[in-house]
Amino acid sequence: MTDGDANKMWGGRFAAGPAAIMQQINASIDIDKRLYAEDIEGSKAHARMLAKQGILTPADGKAIINGLDAVKAEIEAGRFTFKTALEDIHMNVEARLRELIGDAAGRLHTARSRNDQVATDFKLWTRRAIDEVSAAARDLVAALLDRAEQHAGTVMPGFTHLQPAQPITFGHHLMAYVEMFGRDLGRLADCRARLNECPLGAAALAGTSFPIDRHATATALGFDRPSANSLDAVSDRDFALEYLSGLSILAVHLSRLAEEIVIWMSDGFRYITLSDAFTTGSSIMPQKRNPDAAELVRAKAGQVIGSLNQLLIILKGLPLAYGKDMQDDKAPTFAATDTIALCLAATAGMIRDMTVNEARLREATKGGFLTATDLADWLVRVLGLPFRDAHHVTGSIVAKAEAAGCQLHELPLAEMQQIEPKITTAVFDVLGVDQSVASRKSFGGTAPDNVRRAIGAAKERFL
Amino acid sequence: MTDGDANKMWGGRFAAGPAAIMQQINASIDIDKRLYAEDIEGSKAHARMLAKQGILTPADGKAIINGLDAVKAEIEAGRFTFKTALEDIHMNVEARLRELIGDAAGRLHTARSRNDQVATDFKLWTRRAIDEVSAAARDLVAALLDRAEQHAGTVMPGFTHLQPAQPITFGHHLMAYVEMFGRDLGRLADCRARLNECPLGAAALAGTSFPIDRHATATALGFDRPSANSLDAVSDRDFALEYLSGLSILAVHLSRLAEEIVIWMSDGFRYITLSDAFTTGSSIMPQKRNPDAAELVRAKAGQVIGSLNQLLIILKGLPLAYGKDMQDDKAPTFAATDTIALCLAATAGMIRDMTVNEARLREATKGGFLTATDLADWLVRVLGLPFRDAHHVTGSIVAKAEAAGCQLHELPLAEMQQIEPKITTAVFDVLGVDQSVASRKSFGGTAPDNVRRAIGAAKERFL
Amino acid sequence: MTDGDANKMWGGRFAAGPAAIMQQINASIDIDKRLYAEDIEGSKAHARMLAKQGILTPADGKAIINGLDAVKAEIEAGRFTFKTALEDIHMNVEARLRELIGDAAGRLHTARSRNDQVATDFKLWTRRAIDEVSAAARDLVAALLDRAEQHAGTVMPGFTHLQPAQPITFGHHLMAYVEMFGRDLGRLADCRARLNECPLGAAALAGTSFPIDRHATATALGFDRPSANSLDAVSDRDFALEYLSGLSILAVHLSRLAEEIVIWMSDGFRYITLSDAFTTGSSIMPQKRNPDAAELVRAKAGQVIGSLNQLLIILKGLPLAYGKDMQDDKAPTFAATDTIALCLAATAGMIRDMTVNEARLREATKGGFLTATDLADWLVRVLGLPFRDAHHVTGSIVAKAEAAGCQLHELPLAEMQQIEPKITTAVFDVLGVDQSVASRKSFGGTAPDNVRRAIGAAKERFL
Amino acid sequence: MTDGDANKMWGGRFAAGPAAIMQQINASIDIDKRLYAEDIEGSKAHARMLAKQGILTPADGKAIINGLDAVKAEIEAGRFTFKTALEDIHMNVEARLRELIGDAAGRLHTARSRNDQVATDFKLWTRRAIDEVSAAARDLVAALLDRAEQHAGTVMPGFTHLQPAQPITFGHHLMAYVEMFGRDLGRLADCRARLNECPLGAAALAGTSFPIDRHATATALGFDRPSANSLDAVSDRDFALEYLSGLSILAVHLSRLAEEIVIWMSDGFRYITLSDAFTTGSSIMPQKRNPDAAELVRAKAGQVIGSLNQLLIILKGLPLAYGKDMQDDKAPTFAATDTIALCLAATAGMIRDMTVNEARLREATKGGFLTATDLADWLVRVLGLPFRDAHHVTGSIVAKAEAAGCQLHELPLAEMQQIEPKITTAVFDVLGVDQSVASRKSFGGTAPDNVRRAIGAAKERFL
Repeated sequence: MTDGDANKMWGGRFAAGPAAIMQQINASIDIDKRLYAEDIEGSKAHARMLAKQGILTPADGKAIINGLDAVKAEIEAGRFTFKTALEDIHMNVEARLRELIGDAAGRLHTARSRNDQVATDFKLWTRRAIDEVSAAARDLVAALLDRAEQHAGTVMPGFTHLQPAQPITFGHHLMAYVEMFGRDLGRLADCRARLNECPLGAAALAGTSFPIDRHATATALGFDRPSANSLDAVSDRDFALEYLSGLSILAVHLSRLAEEIVIWMSDGFRYITLSDAFTTGSSIMPQKRNPDAAELVRAKAGQVIGSLNQLLIILKGLPLAYGKDMQDDKAPTFAATDTIALCLAATAGMIRDMTVNEARLREATKGGFLTATDLADWLVRVLGLPFRDAHHVTGSIVAKAEAAGCQLHELPLAEMQQIEPKITTAVFDVLGVDQSVASRKSFGGTAPDNVRRAIGAAKERFL
Repeated sequence: MTDGDANKMWGGRFAAGPAAIMQQINASIDIDKRLYAEDIEGSKAHARMLAKQGILTPADGKAIINGLDAVKAEIEAGRFTFKTALEDIHMNVEARLRELIGDAAGRLHTARSRNDQVATDFKLWTRRAIDEVSAAARDLVAALLDRAEQHAGTVMPGFTHLQPAQPITFGHHLMAYVEMFGRDLGRLADCRARLNECPLGAAALAGTSFPIDRHATATALGFDRPSANSLDAVSDRDFALEYLSGLSILAVHLSRLAEEIVIWMSDGFRYITLSDAFTTGSSIMPQKRNPDAAELVRAKAGQVIGSLNQLLIILKGLPLAYGKDMQDDKAPTFAATDTIALCLAATAGMIRDMTVNEARLREATKGGFLTATDLADWLVRVLGLPFRDAHHVTGSIVAKAEAAGCQLHELPLAEMQQIEPKITTAVFDVLGVDQSVASRKSFGGTAPDNVRRAIGAAKERFL
Repeated sequence: MTDGDANKMWGGRFAAGPAAIMQQINASIDIDKRLYAEDIEGSKAHARMLAKQGILTPADGKAIINGLDAVKAEIEAGRFTFKTALEDIHMNVEARLRELIGDAAGRLHTARSRNDQVATDFKLWTRRAIDEVSAAARDLVAALLDRAEQHAGTVMPGFTHLQPAQPITFGHHLMAYVEMFGRDLGRLADCRARLNECPLGAAALAGTSFPIDRHATATALGFDRPSANSLDAVSDRDFALEYLSGLSILAVHLSRLAEEIVIWMSDGFRYITLSDAFTTGSSIMPQKRNPDAAELVRAKAGQVIGSLNQLLIILKGLPLAYGKDMQDDKAPTFAATDTIALCLAATAGMIRDMTVNEARLREATKGGFLTATDLADWLVRVLGLPFRDAHHVTGSIVAKAEAAGCQLHELPLAEMQQIEPKITTAVFDVLGVDQSVASRKSFGGTAPDNVRRAIGAAKERFL
Repeated sequence: MTDGDANKMWGGRFAAGPAAIMQQINASIDIDKRLYAEDIEGSKAHARMLAKQGILTPADGKAIINGLDAVKAEIEAGRFTFKTALEDIHMNVEARLRELIGDAAGRLHTARSRNDQVATDFKLWTRRAIDEVSAAARDLVAALLDRAEQHAGTVMPGFTHLQPAQPITFGHHLMAYVEMFGRDLGRLADCRARLNECPLGAAALAGTSFPIDRHATATALGFDRPSANSLDAVSDRDFALEYLSGLSILAVHLSRLAEEIVIWMSDGFRYITLSDAFTTGSSIMPQKRNPDAAELVRAKAGQVIGSLNQLLIILKGLPLAYGKDMQDDKAPTFAATDTIALCLAATAGMIRDMTVNEARLREATKGGFLTATDLADWLVRVLGLPFRDAHHVTGSIVAKAEAAGCQLHELPLAEMQQIEPKITTAVFDVLGVDQSVASRKSFGGTAPDNVRRAIGAAKERFL
């Protein structure tokens, strides 16, 4: 698009006729070259097993392994030319291997097919992606834990419906996200464990008559066992679907935090400030800090969910065993992985970067009669009112404070006693914001001591 | 729609003004009444804990528990009137409890809110749904294992790209689905384990100052532990997302099997026959059997994936803690559960019902030169040709057979030797379909003995 | 679920065996009974045409028409019993017709099949739904225009990235939504025009040998013409896909407005107040107004997009002509229609209900140096600076004002001249918020006179 | 991924800290450089208008226009270096312009902002994409019409539920797709007409105080008018949503045709043959033709629907005016466009390439008692039986033929008369497949003369 006739967006590309169109739609090398390391790793394990089983001669086995190492070195040195005419990564590697070692290369494909080969490559790639995404998620958890520790006692309004509800601490709020990302880690770990069965040796779809040792290749490649059914082995993409599901839920978590960052950065809230590192400015309004990174993290949930949706649609209604439709499994998986990796890094960066405006957070707790629930609970606990009645009394007292334009703890006792004569001066012990958060000591509650304990526990659970 | 003026689809419904519109959009009782059992179960556990902790008197605790049992009995006897004006299941139950036991009902809501209450109810419901979906999936696995056992040795063409590729057995083909549904069971079990943390006692969002015992209610309700963060407890719907992800992958598996049933039932294939029980006929063409049930199972993957998509969209970018958006979590979860339950039952029914046309399956193996791979493998194994060369030789021999209009094993040895002189009469041992499948003894391969062993193992693994 | 054994969610339903399962998955009457009016309307037009063409006797034609009217009257009076055993609305109506008029009923189905019948019914329903959704959307546009008129000159901060950017008027902001809903009306109108081809007479898939007059039935049913290809006529569901696409875009617009209402209602903004009619309160915090209706409108975009996704998935890869998968077209279409109808009514209600806090809006314009762009434009226009240079100068002046803790128009001229000596006192004419909005007279700009003109034009364009 | 340490998939990319992460997530130049021609076209129109309005001097205007032409030439010659540090296409072009023409470049951005600039660029791109996709769709329609003309009289079984139903012609079947793609063209044309309002001059969000002429730039860029509201102008992405909706429906049509090609190519059907140009072979099975292109077209509906879903999710709940989330609008739009372009070309290629196996199609009409409906219609038309009774009689006669193992027209008259004595020898006139299709003369029916007329009409309507 950036070169050539601007009046032709893509039409010209197909001028060369059927051959060009077919190559364009059929070749996957632009996408699947990212599998090169896994492809070579799988081939080496296969070759070693073939040699051990006597299916390859030791000499051929050795030549193949050395050749594959040479191909890998060429690729990583940037000296390898990927050829579209060779369609995919498997043929590109094998063709180069043949150039390097000659006919022995032709023996590598004994007792396998591209169907089990690509399934193995893609599983290895996904397993590694899970490990790297998990590491990035743990880094974000570490960033959240650090900031939660700093702000275990920093009071702020807790919201429901984006309306102030009850006081909480900023650390407690961040710890909610630690729980979310902790579950994400669990989902990824479960996905990894479930995918860890090796398709190699399923051959085209039916298994093989060669005396291969699938347990050996499975072990060599770090799998727990070979997959149990050869048709399933080549037509299964559950691992990609489950992985994309896990990424989608993770992306939703990231988007929720991103939305909060955008709101907290708004002029109406000003709870936090992000530095220039994660905002864009305006040459005209130097005070302006647009939270671009947060907005982009929020947006990118769309990409990840779209990728999941894409692969579910591709696989829906597909008969066994391998269909070419499945070639389109990798693009959405790669794209979602790149997106999540970037979003995790950007979010960890923002969490570490942000200045928490403690004074502003405390100021914000003065609106909204945040300790009304504390008053109601006191009426239940100390005066023994049923909860629903205590709510009614509290409502009347809040209405009085609202009319008087003061906060709850500023309302004179006599005014409260007009509503409920049994109220005593002891009530003021629960009406302050700090007293409120300190009192929420139920397991999982926002009391600063709780939050600190939760941070300690989370370090054990997730890091 | 079925009564009233046909010229107004829904407009009239809102004629009454804002109050009617708000009630219509806000009330959830039509949906969440399905949570009645869980709501009462959760309330009973909460009441027992409050009494044990001395927050409720023993008398109040007892009255509440008896009252809740009475409400449940009324609902299950069909004697309960759900009221839209009371919005949701929680208020419907509590309002009736107050009618039955008076003011003590007002003490039940001490130290909780609707936010933790509905999260608890919905988790309990989802946990039960997982158990029942899993039971139905195991029933389908059992049906597949039975038919696989009958047809462990029934040969058929194995397909890639819907083109005949290599001979397999029908039992082996069914066992591929056993692996898929087995993984589905694993995903559901992981989801169940991860969701099994109890939100009750998180209260509105911050925890509570009442001396509650969250571990006690968690244990009483069968949870492994209370959830660790009160904000997360009320705003987390991961369990529904993960459950819907699991159902979506399961639905994709069901759709693949359904597509195969539709193809196998077609005039071009006729591999199986479904009885009247799972087809619809035509009064005009009595021989016609439309595989409606299979088509509907195939279609319904759309509903399940749509539900997953819906909930991901709802939760994307939602700030903490509870937002009313989350009320729309239940409709897609309930709908997807009902759909999957129906599809599992219909599929198990079709698997048990279908007649496998063995003669037709064997006949179909005669086309497509299905044992060409066996020939190539023989050239490698016995004559020592490199695999890629063996492929070339095989191609030439197949071309000869195609030109002669015969199958591979019908081609005279002399013809083969024109291509590759070293071929001996021993080659005929691998060219028959039965010899082919019998030879695929690699782990997970289609050899009938393998299939029988896999069936035995699957019974251990999944039933 | 609300009756019976709480330990069985749905399992028991299938205890009766294959017949019960098949009826459950196959019958559509619970859904498609909403088509009763269209089914009868279509049948009457078909019968009249058959009689006119001499395919039915006049007596039979008359009996059928009278009988169909009687069936419709029974349904609308609530005296009709829909039977699951009769599967769908078509068979329910025809069976009752036979009871009422005897054997003549059997002649109604001449020269048609259920395939063209259901396509016709569903198109008629969708066409009516478009008309009613459009009416509701126009009502929302009318509400927006009313409020825009009131607030054509009410200044407020305009946002990008949720950061204050430039002053605009509240009326101008509302008019942005008028444009969106105006486009939605256009999309629905285009969809209506495109779907308006009549499938009736396509029969099962191939047309018919009876001398029917498809142009006559098309005209009688308000279609522009009969559809041109009989296979396409029975397998086309484009109209539902296009309609759901239109509703999805409309739902996105509604969700954007809903998000703004939630933000505007937040404690940090307080730009508007919704009355009790569209909020829920808290018995404990009487000042609280949770914008539940807005949150639900925001959430429900998920349902509509999920429905679109569902139907796209169902139709993807479906061979011609009719497949039973297509029976699942109606549930998502009905659900999305109901949702949109409710959301449009709720949104129009909120727009009419909201109190616009003008003082607060004006107060909010004091932050953010909203007229910085006006200053830069003045430097370009009056002093002739290149735009990029003017931006730089403006940035320095804003930095001075920020340091001084004052607004731009409060900064002494001398301070400005330290940055750019050529600035004169005339600059103050553009630094006020009211002057700023008044100056944006470019077509489509926020100047109050512009806004009023746009309102007048919009009344012509959309009402 | 193809270079560097294989143990790090992407982690290393962020090692440089916040700046690198922010650049990575924020820069869009890798994507939006595809807008270069539109960006320059828009800037030239803007500069000409500024000069005409006296906002730019003639000299500056001329310098800018010449400079922009020079930049475009550099890009198209491949001599332009896109810089990530300059973020996007707009800044890349403007920075280079400044290098080429000096300070005058700084005057180009007068009275606009990146917000209206990018909206204009993206609309221009989308409009051009619509034109090119439409041309490609018309080419596919032309291919279908050619083949339909050749096979207007080629009989084949028509299917419902993938079961043989009634005889049709192959040409008639192809014409169903002509109708679908014809509607797609209509949808794209409507989208084009609706998007054709020019955002340029909306500036950041509020319009401008410069005396610009938005009607002039609109006209110069081929728009019908300027957009009516400045906030909407910069925050509207309806055109992309509507375009992606149109592509999604088009992709569904392509996937249906692709599924049919896969089935028609299967061993059970063999209705058509694709040449090597659109299939992949197997070196081992030379007769094998895997319909890879068709499978890939089928799969790619997933990509397009995923892209639509992605953008709907991104825009859902986004407050006005511009948010950075909207930067992610282009990637899915570009990707879906490329995909559809490729799929249209591949499908047109396959339609032109395929050999229609006429003998096999005729042979296939012998199964399934395809003319049973013709018999029933004869009983109604000639003997005057009610349709439902005629169906019953037909069912009995078909059962007789099935038992006798013959086709309907091979059953002796006497056998038929045992069921219905009034049947005469005239019945045989409707029982042949050719007679059947010839008789379906109702408008839109499959009679070859009809098909030929429909082809003629379609040429008028769509080409």
